[in-house]
Amino acid sequence: MTTSHAPVNLARKLSQFDELWAQKKVADLNDYEVKLAKLKGEFVWHTHEDTDELFLVISGRLTIQLRDGDVTLEPGELFVVPRGVEHRPVADEETAILLLEPAGVLNTGDAGGPLTKAAEALH
Amino acid sequence: MTTSHAPVNLARKLSQFDELWAQKKVADLNDYEVKLAKLKGEFVWHTHEDTDELFLVISGRLTIQLRDGDVTLEPGELFVVPRGVEHRPVADEETAILLLEPAGVLNTGDAGGPLTKAAEALH
Repeated sequence: MTTSHAPVNLARKLSQFDELWAQKKVADLNDYEVKLAKLKGEFVWHTHEDTDELFLVISGRLTIQLRDGDVTLEPGELFVVPRGVEHRPVADEETAILLLEPAGVLNTGDAGGPLTKAAEALH
Repeated sequence: MTTSHAPVNLARKLSQFDELWAQKKVADLNDYEVKLAKLKGEFVWHTHEDTDELFLVISGRLTIQLRDGDVTLEPGELFVVPRGVEHRPVADEETAILLLEPAGVLNTGDAGGPLTKAAEALH
């Protein structure tokens, strides 16, 4: 088997795109995807019925609104939104995050709508 | 459902232990575990036959030796060792990493031996 020997540099990968709310895949882990995203503003309320979702803030500041209260993440902080829990990401300033969840999970979960985008690989 | 609203602060969690080569679980993601570890020195060559393994360096510098070459990770860099690929982590200085893999994976994989430790939850 040929193994890639190139580490994934998160800052370098983040410099390769500007699009907000798009999920860019940087690595596969079994049937999971490691993705990066840049967020600013308010997303839509949505739920992933079948999976937990991990958010790790790299820069900026992310509030994950939940129906029973908010979670605010600074750089170097992570939070797992449990499956079935409705949530809405909100970022007052541009915020870079690492996301981890099974491959194929859509960003808007059950909500759909115009912000729905499949993840794209970032090379 | 009651949802925890506490983010996981990686630096704070790392300040809670000193033990080297021990894996400390800080979050669950479905049937995966997010773990932290502090490394210094040379680990053992080993393989995880059934799973990929993600390494993200938080501080320090990690070399992942593979039989066909080394991968060196600086802070903010990640690498996924594919399943079935023999590897050995080596850190010349004390290095803090985030690890991600399915629950129950042992640190020494197929190699076993005295360095084998199950992950422990860090509260």
